[in-house]
Amino acid sequence: MVQYGRVTRDEAQRLDAADPLADFVEEFVVAEERLIYLDGNSLGRLPRRTAARVDAVLRHEWGAGLVRSWADWLDLPTRVGDRIGAALLGAGPGQVLVADSTTINLYKLAAAAVEARPGRTVIATDEANFPTDRYVLQGLAGARGMTIRLVGEAGALPAALDGDVALVASSLVDYRSGAVAPAAEITAAAHGAGALTLWDLSHAAGAVVVSLDEWDVDLAAGCSYKYLHGGPGAPAWLYVRQELQEGLVPPVWGWFGNEDQFAMGPGWHPAAGIRRWLSGTPDVLGLTAVEAGVSVLEEAGIDRMRSKAVALTSYGARLAERWLRPLGFTLGSPPDPAQRGSHIALRHHEAYRLSRALIEEAATIVDFRRPDVLRIGLAPLTTRFIDVWDGLDRLRDLAEARAWERYDRTPGRIT
Amino acid sequence: MVQYGRVTRDEAQRLDAADPLADFVEEFVVAEERLIYLDGNSLGRLPRRTAARVDAVLRHEWGAGLVRSWADWLDLPTRVGDRIGAALLGAGPGQVLVADSTTINLYKLAAAAVEARPGRTVIATDEANFPTDRYVLQGLAGARGMTIRLVGEAGALPAALDGDVALVASSLVDYRSGAVAPAAEITAAAHGAGALTLWDLSHAAGAVVVSLDEWDVDLAAGCSYKYLHGGPGAPAWLYVRQELQEGLVPPVWGWFGNEDQFAMGPGWHPAAGIRRWLSGTPDVLGLTAVEAGVSVLEEAGIDRMRSKAVALTSYGARLAERWLRPLGFTLGSPPDPAQRGSHIALRHHEAYRLSRALIEEAATIVDFRRPDVLRIGLAPLTTRFIDVWDGLDRLRDLAEARAWERYDRTPGRIT
Repeated sequence: MVQYGRVTRDEAQRLDAADPLADFVEEFVVAEERLIYLDGNSLGRLPRRTAARVDAVLRHEWGAGLVRSWADWLDLPTRVGDRIGAALLGAGPGQVLVADSTTINLYKLAAAAVEARPGRTVIATDEANFPTDRYVLQGLAGARGMTIRLVGEAGALPAALDGDVALVASSLVDYRSGAVAPAAEITAAAHGAGALTLWDLSHAAGAVVVSLDEWDVDLAAGCSYKYLHGGPGAPAWLYVRQELQEGLVPPVWGWFGNEDQFAMGPGWHPAAGIRRWLSGTPDVLGLTAVEAGVSVLEEAGIDRMRSKAVALTSYGARLAERWLRPLGFTLGSPPDPAQRGSHIALRHHEAYRLSRALIEEAATIVDFRRPDVLRIGLAPLTTRFIDVWDGLDRLRDLAEARAWERYDRTPGRIT
Repeated sequence: MVQYGRVTRDEAQRLDAADPLADFVEEFVVAEERLIYLDGNSLGRLPRRTAARVDAVLRHEWGAGLVRSWADWLDLPTRVGDRIGAALLGAGPGQVLVADSTTINLYKLAAAAVEARPGRTVIATDEANFPTDRYVLQGLAGARGMTIRLVGEAGALPAALDGDVALVASSLVDYRSGAVAPAAEITAAAHGAGALTLWDLSHAAGAVVVSLDEWDVDLAAGCSYKYLHGGPGAPAWLYVRQELQEGLVPPVWGWFGNEDQFAMGPGWHPAAGIRRWLSGTPDVLGLTAVEAGVSVLEEAGIDRMRSKAVALTSYGARLAERWLRPLGFTLGSPPDPAQRGSHIALRHHEAYRLSRALIEEAATIVDFRRPDVLRIGLAPLTTRFIDVWDGLDRLRDLAEARAWERYDRTPGRIT
């Protein structure tokens, strides 16, 4: 257990010096030394190796190899999927695929799940689930004459289950609070009620230790552009438990998911295994960037990343308690670091305008989430303890000076 | 009209010298001078500017700008869509979006279309439509208790329409034969029967002059990796006619298609206009590559590209008539160049093994399509007349030598 002494900047430097992952910052592009980037849970930093790898794929595989390179590209979705599964998800091979966006993957998985539970008319989820997840489920439910059973948060899902529920869907790590849901417990409850489970791991993969196989999870999906460092809008991944693969049919019958793709025959027959979840032509540039990002995570190892995440959020919460609580902030995350992902929420009635001030006056990037959350993302491989110290130090100074009064109240589209 | 003299290699060189688009070859990476690439209708060549542009986006926008770059990235799907619409589709602004894959876009558009024609139980399409299109429609029809009315080819669709048909779907350019369907006529017939139309333009955009607005087309989609030179698995585009936009609701309710994306509120309300068709986070690298490719096409202009396409397929058909028909080949494309896209089909009973011989012995890349088609892709910006001459010359030599006897009969997955 890391022990913290007096809150001085030296202390942060000592923590960095003792950090076994400290050198990994060198694996990433850091263009502005002064910038404190506490938003790696929105968009992870660019790995140095990614630019070189993408350039090689562009020039050699596409430019020179042309269509012949499909011999290698065809397996990218499962090859990268297997690497993500092994490194970050506790998933054996043949269960993870990289394709499409998180939203599309959630749609495909949820549609197949409710199809596999005929006669059941309810999808259960929680208000804290990420917006696109809730919207996808609402759209599906509406189209199929089903209803959404909405509870306040993931922990309330087991009590909301009965024989009408086809699917239970939630996020493993809450995108605002960072709270970790008891996935194994909720999954067991869902199975007890005869329902399938769908977990969104966008804020979890790379931040907490995930054991999809062990937890008996049915379906999962997540993005690749946060802790996986795959880049803006990188293709997402999906997981379908081995035993369910033969019984589930994706709603989108695409040629890449066909049993014999190049027969181009009259009928679609789902490919064996995870490949049936492919739809259109794989996004080769995106897959290349995801694979490069994941290769950095493989070297770091999820156990060390998780330890660092715990240490970083603990340090941030401790500084916030000392510096920010007297200024009207409250911690919007679970107090126990074991119950958090790799970000913390700081609540303040002027959170939005403070986020503007941090960016514009203090070269510190955090996320604002309505109504009153400053989301402090502490990506394990790219955040130093000194960044936490400096970022919250700058926030304290701005809050003390009531810097928000210099900004207008209208939240922009993205910060 | 281009007039052809005696069939000599000099003649091909003279045609290249007179080609107003000849210099555009310089805009693309050509790694092997000896390689004859007649497969640009499968994967277009890499534009030189793409590698530089992708690298800049990686290093400056992602690496340095980080999450701040979303201020620019948010409009990429519509910005690139508008450029494609104006340059290649005859579509006014606000009707084209670049996102997801062709397969996903076909699914979304077709699902919304049948939803907008309640009570109608039939989707009409043709056997010649591209496989992923047919599979998507079959999957949708099955899930909704609808049936597929299948005709032999697009031209037979008008005769198959009645009040039961919700949607008529086909490809503007046949992926095998290159035949151009009479889209305006079929669309008018569909409208006469009260149905909507969905056109796949993957083999058409950049190859023929398309006038979606003028033809009164309802919905269209297409890929970006053929004549658009956007790269392997680049994000696809979709078109929704202005007047239909308010009435159509995509089946996938994603956060990027929500009216107020960052409100992250309880309900999904479709964004105004074309943006409601966005699902998940836009693929920034892919969009960057597509935009770079389209910028080359804008400089060339679709009218000059179309003239070159006509000249190239005419030249190829003429050489095939002279050299290959005596060897048992037949032209599997319309004899009138105005009725063809930018590729021709050469049929031969040993097409598959000849395609292997071309690649392995003659550095000439063409596509094989079952059962007996050699698909000769003549991308207007990257194919020279000398390439047509050399490629078909090599094919003639191999066919004369019965080179197929050196290869086994099992078609590989992709060539």
